Amino acid sequence: MSKKLGSQTITLAKPVNILSAASTVGPKEGEGPLAKYFDVVLTDILAGENSWELAEAKIAKDTFTMAVSKSNLDLTTIDYILSGDLLNQSISTTFGIKDLNIPFYGLFGACSTMGEGMSLGSMLIDGGFANYILAGASSHFCAAEKQFRFPLELGTQRPPTSSWTVTGQGSVVLSLDGEGPYIKQITTGKIVDMGIKDPNNMGAAMAPAAVDTMIAHFKDTGKNPDYYDLIITGDLGYVGKELVVRLMKENGYNLETNYTDCGIEIFDKNTQDTHAGGSGCGCSATTFCGYYYPKLKSKELNKILFIPTGALMSPTSTKQKQSIPAIAQAVVIESFF
Amino acid sequence: MSKKLGSQTITLAKPVNILSAASTVGPKEGEGPLAKYFDVVLTDILAGENSWELAEAKIAKDTFTMAVSKSNLDLTTIDYILSGDLLNQSISTTFGIKDLNIPFYGLFGACSTMGEGMSLGSMLIDGGFANYILAGASSHFCAAEKQFRFPLELGTQRPPTSSWTVTGQGSVVLSLDGEGPYIKQITTGKIVDMGIKDPNNMGAAMAPAAVDTMIAHFKDTGKNPDYYDLIITGDLGYVGKELVVRLMKENGYNLETNYTDCGIEIFDKNTQDTHAGGSGCGCSATTFCGYYYPKLKSKELNKILFIPTGALMSPTSTKQKQSIPAIAQAVVIESFF
Repeated sequence: MSKKLGSQTITLAKPVNILSAASTVGPKEGEGPLAKYFDVVLTDILAGENSWELAEAKIAKDTFTMAVSKSNLDLTTIDYILSGDLLNQSISTTFGIKDLNIPFYGLFGACSTMGEGMSLGSMLIDGGFANYILAGASSHFCAAEKQFRFPLELGTQRPPTSSWTVTGQGSVVLSLDGEGPYIKQITTGKIVDMGIKDPNNMGAAMAPAAVDTMIAHFKDTGKNPDYYDLIITGDLGYVGKELVVRLMKENGYNLETNYTDCGIEIFDKNTQDTHAGGSGCGCSATTFCGYYYPKLKSKELNKILFIPTGALMSPTSTKQKQSIPAIAQAVVIESFF
Repeated sequence: MSKKLGSQTITLAKPVNILSAASTVGPKEGEGPLAKYFDVVLTDILAGENSWELAEAKIAKDTFTMAVSKSNLDLTTIDYILSGDLLNQSISTTFGIKDLNIPFYGLFGACSTMGEGMSLGSMLIDGGFANYILAGASSHFCAAEKQFRFPLELGTQRPPTSSWTVTGQGSVVLSLDGEGPYIKQITTGKIVDMGIKDPNNMGAAMAPAAVDTMIAHFKDTGKNPDYYDLIITGDLGYVGKELVVRLMKENGYNLETNYTDCGIEIFDKNTQDTHAGGSGCGCSATTFCGYYYPKLKSKELNKILFIPTGALMSPTSTKQKQSIPAIAQAVVIESFF
């Protein structure tokens, strides 16, 4: 039986195996420092489709299919897909998977979606409801900018705190079978709203949520940050990461040696002009699937705390002068059983 | 241990109790045939707020809180909230619950969300991950019209196939404790897309998904429709219901005596001018919580198959001339253990 620790953390009765991970990214991510780690780097940001939204749907479909192939499984063996994205009514997910013929639960956790899917997926497997689950998340720079900020054609200037939405999708297959890496614990996030209202400063809006989930995790489990080889948030970028380190220090936790953020890893600060770093559902999903999953598989990393972070606002809430609530979903992944 | 039947159905190891149900609706629903069954009928569609979106958030917060009070529980005892809505980036849910301080997983299943939340919630309880879960879904006529169709101020004529988005929220508390009614089985939907492109004919778009999930349910379980006192779809309205009856008949299932749809029950066809009936996440959520839950509690109904239905399009996909994929999530609820 799984065990509830404290108020937000679950220790799975039996660690859930991440059988495979697949990633597809766009051209800009393919010019970044992690380029060689992704399975597919698109040369065409439209992926051969007629719109950015359909491009994201195609990337989602292809990456889910690739993850299943890498596990030497067939799509018909997958019990559930758990996934989502940033677009209104999650259309890149639903249009992407609509022909895959797999039972589906749609998720919305903004950029925390990969953590949400891995968490719920692990629980459904640990609870005996499924043998194989596909979890994933996607985003697309052009579709997201158009929807959340300004038409790209305007060439609007971006402030230094703004981040760059990653184009890409990351998918994992979860199962009780396999030889790791393993999902062992889950700390579910609560919504945190510190009153930040600037949609061009998502890092500052999301950092307190990441801190809230991390502190809950350490309190629930009795661990300290140095238990982990690496603590990896989703898409806080430079601004958010610095805030996390400072807020955690104020709470008595030292993150200075083993903490990073996918939004910092995926782009080169000096040459790629992304300002605060990468963001979007695809940021943590592709960076985990392409870069960190193989390091866990090869045991270069043995213990990570993976914390995708999501900003839960919409253009409507911003226009109505509302703040930006945020959430962070933490997953403990280890290379050994 | 729970048991997987066929490819889409789970029989829970131990039936999950619906400890309480709460509902809030808007003024129009308060003039309909179910008015007296809802806990709260708003006289002000803004619920005292400054925008329709904030009104929906307030309704969500108040109804979740009411469901917890009805169970004689405290908000701090709730392990997870599983919920969602129709607005872009689910802002009525996230702004509604952000101060409740409860671990949260956001769902997007369009108008099938109540079924999705009850399904995932039951599995998390049956799997031993939670003692108490809040599941709910909301919609707001004005916020939905503005977002999906036209500004209300335009006074646009509505075609006869169009449905009327319900203003309201329905919430349930799920637990292993209690004396029923009980969730016993779950049939998870697959996305079905029959090529319908008219966003003013959601009933036709969603009917094939309802049929797909129903047929999967009957095949997986070996039951026939006459096993149930009532089969209740979410928001197909008159157009969709007729299609479901016809399509089911073509597949050898007779639904003529014990099948209805929440979109038909919630408004009066002759006096309320809603055309095809009610729709929206709140349609099935409020009708179940206000009207059917007490009938199960009193054993006036003993066995129902509840199937919230969702249309998975967005205004962007419609403008890009895409079809409307749909999904239906089925839950078996019985008055006895």
